[in-house]
Amino acid sequence: MRTSIATVCLSGTLEEKLQAAATAGFDGVEIFEQDLIVSPNSPESIAALAAELGPSLDLYQPFRDFEGVDDEQFAANLARAEAKFQLMKRMGMTTILLCSNVATATIDDDEVVVDQLRRLGDLAEKYDVDVAYEALAWGRFVSEYARAWDLVKAADHPRIGTCLDSFHILSRGTDLSRIAEIPGEKIFFLQLADAPALSMDVLSWSRHHRVFPGEGAWDLTDFLTRVAETGYAGPVSLEVFNDSFRQADTRRTAVDGLRSLRWLEANVTAARTGSDPVRLDLQPLPHVSEPRGIDYVELSTDALGALTRQIHQLGFRFVGFHRTKPHVQLWRRGQARIVVTETTEPGVESAGPAVDSAESGDPSVEPASPAADFAESGTRLRGIGFAVDEADAAMERALLLSATEVPRDQAHDEEVLRGVFAPDGSEVFFANGTGEDPQWTDEFGNVPDDRQSAIDHINLAQPAHHYDEAVLFYTSLLALTALPSQDVPSPTGLVRSQVMSSVDGAVRMPLNVSPDHSTNALSRGAGSSGETYPEHVAIACDDIFTAATTAVARGLKFLAVPQNYYEDLAARFDIAPELLDRLREHNILYDRDDSGEFLHFYTSTIGSVFFEMVERRTGYHGFGAPNAPVRLAAQHRRNKES
Amino acid sequence: MRTSIATVCLSGTLEEKLQAAATAGFDGVEIFEQDLIVSPNSPESIAALAAELGPSLDLYQPFRDFEGVDDEQFAANLARAEAKFQLMKRMGMTTILLCSNVATATIDDDEVVVDQLRRLGDLAEKYDVDVAYEALAWGRFVSEYARAWDLVKAADHPRIGTCLDSFHILSRGTDLSRIAEIPGEKIFFLQLADAPALSMDVLSWSRHHRVFPGEGAWDLTDFLTRVAETGYAGPVSLEVFNDSFRQADTRRTAVDGLRSLRWLEANVTAARTGSDPVRLDLQPLPHVSEPRGIDYVELSTDALGALTRQIHQLGFRFVGFHRTKPHVQLWRRGQARIVVTETTEPGVESAGPAVDSAESGDPSVEPASPAADFAESGTRLRGIGFAVDEADAAMERALLLSATEVPRDQAHDEEVLRGVFAPDGSEVFFANGTGEDPQWTDEFGNVPDDRQSAIDHINLAQPAHHYDEAVLFYTSLLALTALPSQDVPSPTGLVRSQVMSSVDGAVRMPLNVSPDHSTNALSRGAGSSGETYPEHVAIACDDIFTAATTAVARGLKFLAVPQNYYEDLAARFDIAPELLDRLREHNILYDRDDSGEFLHFYTSTIGSVFFEMVERRTGYHGFGAPNAPVRLAAQHRRNKES
Repeated sequence: MRTSIATVCLSGTLEEKLQAAATAGFDGVEIFEQDLIVSPNSPESIAALAAELGPSLDLYQPFRDFEGVDDEQFAANLARAEAKFQLMKRMGMTTILLCSNVATATIDDDEVVVDQLRRLGDLAEKYDVDVAYEALAWGRFVSEYARAWDLVKAADHPRIGTCLDSFHILSRGTDLSRIAEIPGEKIFFLQLADAPALSMDVLSWSRHHRVFPGEGAWDLTDFLTRVAETGYAGPVSLEVFNDSFRQADTRRTAVDGLRSLRWLEANVTAARTGSDPVRLDLQPLPHVSEPRGIDYVELSTDALGALTRQIHQLGFRFVGFHRTKPHVQLWRRGQARIVVTETTEPGVESAGPAVDSAESGDPSVEPASPAADFAESGTRLRGIGFAVDEADAAMERALLLSATEVPRDQAHDEEVLRGVFAPDGSEVFFANGTGEDPQWTDEFGNVPDDRQSAIDHINLAQPAHHYDEAVLFYTSLLALTALPSQDVPSPTGLVRSQVMSSVDGAVRMPLNVSPDHSTNALSRGAGSSGETYPEHVAIACDDIFTAATTAVARGLKFLAVPQNYYEDLAARFDIAPELLDRLREHNILYDRDDSGEFLHFYTSTIGSVFFEMVERRTGYHGFGAPNAPVRLAAQHRRNKES
Repeated sequence: MRTSIATVCLSGTLEEKLQAAATAGFDGVEIFEQDLIVSPNSPESIAALAAELGPSLDLYQPFRDFEGVDDEQFAANLARAEAKFQLMKRMGMTTILLCSNVATATIDDDEVVVDQLRRLGDLAEKYDVDVAYEALAWGRFVSEYARAWDLVKAADHPRIGTCLDSFHILSRGTDLSRIAEIPGEKIFFLQLADAPALSMDVLSWSRHHRVFPGEGAWDLTDFLTRVAETGYAGPVSLEVFNDSFRQADTRRTAVDGLRSLRWLEANVTAARTGSDPVRLDLQPLPHVSEPRGIDYVELSTDALGALTRQIHQLGFRFVGFHRTKPHVQLWRRGQARIVVTETTEPGVESAGPAVDSAESGDPSVEPASPAADFAESGTRLRGIGFAVDEADAAMERALLLSATEVPRDQAHDEEVLRGVFAPDGSEVFFANGTGEDPQWTDEFGNVPDDRQSAIDHINLAQPAHHYDEAVLFYTSLLALTALPSQDVPSPTGLVRSQVMSSVDGAVRMPLNVSPDHSTNALSRGAGSSGETYPEHVAIACDDIFTAATTAVARGLKFLAVPQNYYEDLAARFDIAPELLDRLREHNILYDRDDSGEFLHFYTSTIGSVFFEMVERRTGYHGFGAPNAPVRLAAQHRRNKES
């Protein structure tokens, strides 16, 4: 499948955009007109740069407000078109996007429009240009793809075809069945965008909130399948207007975009059941199923004593040091495993269950990698090991999806573990899940532990402008599902929380995007780092009161829960006074849904990590969201005190 | 008028919110329940703190999902209400907000609801509590204020009244005439919010986009007038859910909120023509008309030579040094005046046309003042002098609207100029406009200059979370009007541009909020300052080619305009080739609207300031918005090169 991306998806100058698209591996680009206009480089030199870098120049866009006008206006519009055709010729470009008229159309008459399209086609013929006519969702008279196609069909001109854009079609909830009527060769271009399910005017939705396929709410697999089955053989191109993408690192956005197309292509390959010939040359990806569970979480720390003491207070048992890496140790509580890597020893830079530090400063790691700026100091969540059906296939898929491999060596007699960087800079490792203790734990010694305990969920803080990238990353690499997002109030702003989960709940990861404090500065142009939002590991247990009692005996400092909270709890729920007293005594929070109950407590924070202990009773599904503001407020107070 | 504010409007802990409301001068607060629940302080100690600080506790809110339920649910709801009444008693609170049922209502029957409200009233009576029943715009069965009032009226219980909330009423576009039916004493509470005109689902609009009165699109003056004329005598309270306010400095938000109420109160006072008795005790403010124009703009600089050279290149004439402040000098071009203050001399900290530095480090300046963090270094736009009808009245009004005065002394024989800090930290000075050269210019010597030139507009960069505050500031202090906002694409994100203007165009100030680069960091929790977005002063002239020629002769470096821009210009407009050549030759940009033409060029940036020279032909009204991306891209390239 030929991949393409509109330059408007990316931040930076036109030259930076071309470079980013090429580096990510796109076959082509759409030139967004304004990017060219503001460039100091001539059309010829832009074309030469593209030729040198690789991507073809697939589409010049947009050409607006052309058809459905009176004769005088039409003459002016035709002159305007000719100027653009001449420009395209200088760049060797042969396809232009014509958007249905928004601003100047006065004549809603098929005959007039068809005639004007045909005359545009005659002009385009002189310049060897194909015109791809697209119905904008907010076009004055033409706003539906089927109407645009009817007009193109009636124009019956070899230089006039249609452009299908998933945003303009899916945003209107239009019936898709008429796509099958369009011969593939009359679809001159295909633009894809996904979008979150928002209830707002379609223009604002389109201009600010589009995302890459897999990052929104729409079924792009079905859409692309329908287009592929027309026999369309051209580029599959991304056109996304997104306020965050405009600000984000352009190289990362390009990688994110290509990942979305590779993932979509594989989905279409897998989903197709019909025997219609398809000319898109679709490539599959190695299949992954949802992870069976979380093998381990790895924390790196410069406060080894404080961290392991807290882990021990939570009932974890020390398993051992890694047999060849003395700075790495393993703790477990039933099936919950925490690898702790000490970073303060001289020369210790890299970590993992069996890691050699030799390559961690490898200059071959591309600068766009999320890991590039990842702080090494402090206590932080470094990585997660996922138990998957086939680790090799998962890794191969991850690399085909443009993930960056974590540089890592292991001794010849050690388990081979491979992993990639997630958008937040944490490491994702794939291990073959067997249902037994994983093989690599032998490298730490063997301590059986059949307690009913596991990692319940891992809460990850995400950098603001890479939120959508993170959703697609976990969806496409690990087959996780995005649950509806929620806003959680904190004393310093709303925290957007998005749970990525396996259907069976074996893997649950709330991704949290914190409010941006850096713009809280009072002075113009200044920035400040603001508060750090911590991440946490939640451990499931079968008796939270026993866990709490053990923790108290071992000296754990709980995150304090206000008395006001318990008074409100008593007002909200019909809850036995004895239970309420026990909750209060241990700083345990409580929630209830239709299925069951949720009891949980928090530890204080070390570095940027804290822990939660949870007990789920009779199938409670959530994460105690009503209690999150209590936690955030308590942590905010601690931050201010410290 | 008694002023009040809901704690949910403000960021921080409950204690910080109370402090901020008290410091700003609010008479009371609404306690948002969650703020109390997450507080470690008891209800009694919160009440004691409020008593110590000043504000009364006017409303406990919200109480949700009470009425229209079956008997079993009703019993539980009544128990929940009793718990809250008990809590309120501990805090000495006597009014609770009851929102119409959203989640649990199953019975849409007036008789049932009226009976349930009445029984709630009986319970409330025991605790000396008044219940203010409010129709939420998305209530399950009750979503209109008139329906809520009908139910309250039918309940006919001394403890059951209604609450009017401008958001829930105006967001639905409901007819307001029935407000007049409600006796003032049955309106138990009044909540005000404004909102921008957005086309989106009302729940999202309400939860994220409310703003203070005067910062949105609604006519709150009319709304409050209607409520006042019912005889309502209670608090006028702000309830605003806003993502930015949740992140902003809580003290500044509180000041902004009080300003909105004082401004609204004065508007109602001025607008009232009826003779209906009003019990709100409305206070007027000194009247201001729109400014007659901009007297001067003041730039402070540590690069005096480079800055004054550029000013000279633009055709300004040196007027003189200030007679007692050798670090201050005046330049003029017709009616355009630029005061330049050098900041590099030792001991020079403060500036202005006749400024003494003695008080500029005054510790009495409250910490919430926008000036507190204002950088002193570099070249920046320090202040603007506005020519107003009555400077003393304008200053008095500004202070009554909680603006912070700029500390400043002058010699006994100098013009008294007083001013306040704007939200972006710049200084706003008020001078009596006479149509002649202002009095204070005598302090620099007198250089007549009758050239047709003036300050056309001043483009100010705004800190992101204080955008709405800035709109209200210029509206309420200077009677400027907010034009519709626009998004301008730059290589690093969308710039939101909001023009504040006088109706006659004598004062035009585009306020620009830059995309936030600080969250562009790849690592978690990190912040970076990113690019600085410059501000600029635009000078109107009557012949841009002569101005450009002079500038070239004096060695001005223009901001370079790409050739691609001129080629596009030729395609877009029917423009004479000779004119196009002249534009290209001088790096002049061009735009056209229905009224006329706009020709303009830009200088390079010094510090955070650059200049624009503009010629408006036959009544062009805009600011060359289509050309702004060209400028932003060119400046972005310069930034990257330097």
